[in-house]
Amino acid sequence: MKRKIDYSLYLCTDRGLMSTPTVEEAVEQAILGGCTLIQLREKDCSSRAFCETACSVKAVTDRYNTPLIINDRPDIALAVGADGVHVGQSDLPCKILRRILGEDKIIGVSASTLEEAVQAEKDGADYLGVGAMYATGTKTDAAIVSMDELLKIRRAVSLPIVVIGGINRETAPAFRNIGVDGLAVVSAIIARPDIRNAARELLEIFKGKSE
Amino acid sequence: MKRKIDYSLYLCTDRGLMSTPTVEEAVEQAILGGCTLIQLREKDCSSRAFCETACSVKAVTDRYNTPLIINDRPDIALAVGADGVHVGQSDLPCKILRRILGEDKIIGVSASTLEEAVQAEKDGADYLGVGAMYATGTKTDAAIVSMDELLKIRRAVSLPIVVIGGINRETAPAFRNIGVDGLAVVSAIIARPDIRNAARELLEIFKGKSE
Repeated sequence: MKRKIDYSLYLCTDRGLMSTPTVEEAVEQAILGGCTLIQLREKDCSSRAFCETACSVKAVTDRYNTPLIINDRPDIALAVGADGVHVGQSDLPCKILRRILGEDKIIGVSASTLEEAVQAEKDGADYLGVGAMYATGTKTDAAIVSMDELLKIRRAVSLPIVVIGGINRETAPAFRNIGVDGLAVVSAIIARPDIRNAARELLEIFKGKSE
Repeated sequence: MKRKIDYSLYLCTDRGLMSTPTVEEAVEQAILGGCTLIQLREKDCSSRAFCETACSVKAVTDRYNTPLIINDRPDIALAVGADGVHVGQSDLPCKILRRILGEDKIIGVSASTLEEAVQAEKDGADYLGVGAMYATGTKTDAAIVSMDELLKIRRAVSLPIVVIGGINRETAPAFRNIGVDGLAVVSAIIARPDIRNAARELLEIFKGKSE
């Protein structure tokens, strides 16, 4: 059966931005700070190295009963028994992923337009990552999604939506109480020296306990 | 059921070496020249681009009833219904691949030592790519396998063996009648302006019709 996911605070890893020595340690601190979902992203390593990292990160997420999503690679997700896969528009299409992964895995799709969002829902995605909401150093070529477009997407699809791209303490308050299910964050958590606190602050902002 | 493979002349593609405009055209010419097996290798593209290329190359190999193997990526092989996957020692381990791909897909493993070869057979590989037999521009960091090591591997494992790495008109005759099942070739076919003739010559040499 498909796992029930809390999308409130979704950490996407990025080894290049980390000040923490290992991705396993970064993920553990993020979970302790309140991250509800982890996406492992490894762009510049061999398949074997990706699989080994995914395996050891899975040991961490399992320890805290936190779901693990693998970026781009359904084979790695199957190899380590991760909960699902997140794909962008230049990764494998959602329909093909569903065939490879079966009905029980979570498939997330990045969308930067209403059209992409609607298509992803049609193709069987489980959630959407909508962005980039703001210019971001993590993905310098990403199209910026206006708040207006985000709200159109929210009205058009019934899938859970996380916003991504430039989400930090300053920008996060804008996404409270507008029907967004969570914040997806890369640098504002992973690049911070105190990952646990960075996560805690963002979750509190999103949940409306502080600003 | 697992497809029966003729390993005699195995083309591994390399887009960077091609003088032919498209990989589909290169593959078709190679098959017309006598290549019995095709491996699609795409190292520097998105998963979606890899999948699209694999899909259109599969249309070519299907037209000639020639098996298609995908380098490194079981997800791409599953996506396009290819016959199998070839992995090196830094790709996914054979045992994990078998779990992802099931019993009917072909799994090939690169081995440069007796130990790797024996392990691959234990792990359920269907064939071995042994090499690099000679220094090659395609993989400059590859370990060189001596003829002695190759013969040891041949005696130790019962899997089909293809030799790879620096196989061309000059080196190919050495692999006739020594229990090797085929020649795996990159540049000596794909980099040649007349792919069809290059393949035909190599097959004739291996089959002992010329030198």
